[in-house]
Amino acid sequence: MKFELLKIDPATGARRGRLHTPHGTVETPVFMPCGTQGTVKALSPQELEGEGVELILCNTYHLYLRPGHELIAELGGLHRFMSWPHPILTDSGGYQVYSLAELRRISEEGVSFQSHLDGSKHFLSPEKVIEIQQALGSDIIMALDECAPYPAAYEYVKTSIELTLRWARRCREAHTSRNPALFGIVQGGVFPDLRERSAEETVRIGFEGYALGGLSVGESKTQTYEVIASTAPMLPLEKPRYLMGLGPPEDLLEAVALGIDMFDCVMPTRHGRTGSLFTSQGRLNIKAARYAKEEGPVDPECDCYTCRHFSRAYLRHLFITGELLGLQLNTLHNLHFYQNLMQQVRRAIEAETFREFKAGFLAKLMQEREDNQSWVEVDKGGQEGRRPRSGKVRMKNKGSTKEVKGFND
Amino acid sequence: MKFELLKIDPATGARRGRLHTPHGTVETPVFMPCGTQGTVKALSPQELEGEGVELILCNTYHLYLRPGHELIAELGGLHRFMSWPHPILTDSGGYQVYSLAELRRISEEGVSFQSHLDGSKHFLSPEKVIEIQQALGSDIIMALDECAPYPAAYEYVKTSIELTLRWARRCREAHTSRNPALFGIVQGGVFPDLRERSAEETVRIGFEGYALGGLSVGESKTQTYEVIASTAPMLPLEKPRYLMGLGPPEDLLEAVALGIDMFDCVMPTRHGRTGSLFTSQGRLNIKAARYAKEEGPVDPECDCYTCRHFSRAYLRHLFITGELLGLQLNTLHNLHFYQNLMQQVRRAIEAETFREFKAGFLAKLMQEREDNQSWVEVDKGGQEGRRPRSGKVRMKNKGSTKEVKGFND
Repeated sequence: MKFELLKIDPATGARRGRLHTPHGTVETPVFMPCGTQGTVKALSPQELEGEGVELILCNTYHLYLRPGHELIAELGGLHRFMSWPHPILTDSGGYQVYSLAELRRISEEGVSFQSHLDGSKHFLSPEKVIEIQQALGSDIIMALDECAPYPAAYEYVKTSIELTLRWARRCREAHTSRNPALFGIVQGGVFPDLRERSAEETVRIGFEGYALGGLSVGESKTQTYEVIASTAPMLPLEKPRYLMGLGPPEDLLEAVALGIDMFDCVMPTRHGRTGSLFTSQGRLNIKAARYAKEEGPVDPECDCYTCRHFSRAYLRHLFITGELLGLQLNTLHNLHFYQNLMQQVRRAIEAETFREFKAGFLAKLMQEREDNQSWVEVDKGGQEGRRPRSGKVRMKNKGSTKEVKGFND
Repeated sequence: MKFELLKIDPATGARRGRLHTPHGTVETPVFMPCGTQGTVKALSPQELEGEGVELILCNTYHLYLRPGHELIAELGGLHRFMSWPHPILTDSGGYQVYSLAELRRISEEGVSFQSHLDGSKHFLSPEKVIEIQQALGSDIIMALDECAPYPAAYEYVKTSIELTLRWARRCREAHTSRNPALFGIVQGGVFPDLRERSAEETVRIGFEGYALGGLSVGESKTQTYEVIASTAPMLPLEKPRYLMGLGPPEDLLEAVALGIDMFDCVMPTRHGRTGSLFTSQGRLNIKAARYAKEEGPVDPECDCYTCRHFSRAYLRHLFITGELLGLQLNTLHNLHFYQNLMQQVRRAIEAETFREFKAGFLAKLMQEREDNQSWVEVDKGGQEGRRPRSGKVRMKNKGSTKEVKGFND
């Protein structure tokens, strides 16, 4: 893999780049849809291509358990298995072990756990996750790390980053090739000195790219931005930077401005399946009775297949009647929103108008928030609650919001 | 509507025709996928078009209850509502009332029932089902009938066909236009004299097309064929003939040979969602463990999107993991099988080779049956049982196999 840094926005620090991988080129900043079990839920590869998707994320934990990396390798690798001839990034599987598996136990050697599917016992070491990802044939693979929960005590996180560093060295030793590209992961919670040490030491080991992990797990937005702002400058300019698991559109813009190149999140796909749709006027919940007679499309400014052909009334009907097409059309629309947003971001960076673009987007957001109390939930009649603002509320759900991710997506 | 009878196969009586409707032309013999609630389950209009679908069936009962025909009319009619600009046939709703609704009571005036969704009370008369279908804006609408169960006593069926005839007259009086085209329905169970009377009187009333109802509800295949063989010749040559609810591919061929032009069934779509896939070598159940490592496509002779891109192993993985894409790809494949079959049928009639085509298809079927015990279930490892052969077995399920239709599809 080779990362080409095309431009740095003089006004913000946003970066325009290009990843060259064995399966094709990826324009950055890029948002990766999640193809957890070897499929981006409810969409075919053809539809993903139609939306201009260039890179997807798949979850090693899920594929390792079912159908198994060895079977996928026998069948010609993950690209062929899922008929996705374009670039794939896989995570290390560690995150899902912490969030999904039963009876997990972390030791110096690695992490043992029982499958959430059948209770079978497994052990993942740094070397093993490299082997699995190599077998899958991913274009970008991730080192095994420990993602500390939030909140976590300073001493816990301090010990944790040292383990993650030792694992990172073992991953690097187990995988010396540049293809697939191996990314290291910076941890350290919300503690600036631990982030600094983690970043410095991870860079010292040397990877083809660097991820920020342990964010979007319950900390406040301010804390997220502070960690990005302080950590990103410690990473080599010429390597891609990947912020794991961040999803809200406004957060993506902030992170791009802080120099992040790559994102993944289940937000567009999962929200699609729950009927929560992104629009230029905020998010709406298609289940709401107020849409029962609405002739207009989800978003008048959107030119996706869903918005070009179907009314809000029809989409609500599909959702209420439990029709599969509703999930498909909703997912397609949400993914289109993300793809379109990232394309606008890239163009704005090229044109050196990213600061204005971002300000305009956020201003619209604020405007909508004033009107609607919450941009993320303009539809007060819907069943979906507002997005939790504090870490505490987020933590209610099995320890962190991200934890649900692996299971549903 | 206008029906153009292009050719009658001299060897079999199979008919090649063309329906001209306000929303386009339909080549016959035609198989209509079921778009029960205003969507063919798991497929977008774009995908239906891609498969060459020209005519779909929607269920009046479902759409009347939810979202309501008046709302659909307000929103510009069913074509616009579901973004399907091509021809639509709707049934009268009667069949689903008999099979799905609660506390149904048939009187001279019509049928009263309680919704299976919320228990709300409703009344459908012949005039009302015409009004509903007019509001939906269908291209072809059906008269209200009583579909007698199987088995049913002669006296019951005799009384029933007279009621159906009185309802048919009221439907005809309520709808004198030729657009939408109104079809009458011939009933009479498996009793030749009742079928004869029903056919003669229905033709006397005069419709734009004629359906055979009350078949494929539990009687034997021989009985089905006998009823078709004796009834079809009583129908006017120049009008289209529609056999309601018949699905197995070999039955479609038999019925075409007996002069039937139109079919509908949930079989390809519902089987797709249960992982039961039609192939040139018989049906297979993709759930079976034997497919876990199979690199080949569902059907090597098939050129659908699913078969061109995905292995049996991948489709099994999608099914086992409960991924939506599995339902989509399976449905697409099965629909392609039906579309392809009907296209071959039409070409064979044109070329006057239909008898040979049918014989070859059935011979292959018999061959497969010898090899596999049952063509419809070549996969003995799968969970799906063999197709019930006798009416009695079929009747186990809420009175008839067809009864399940309305609910699931």
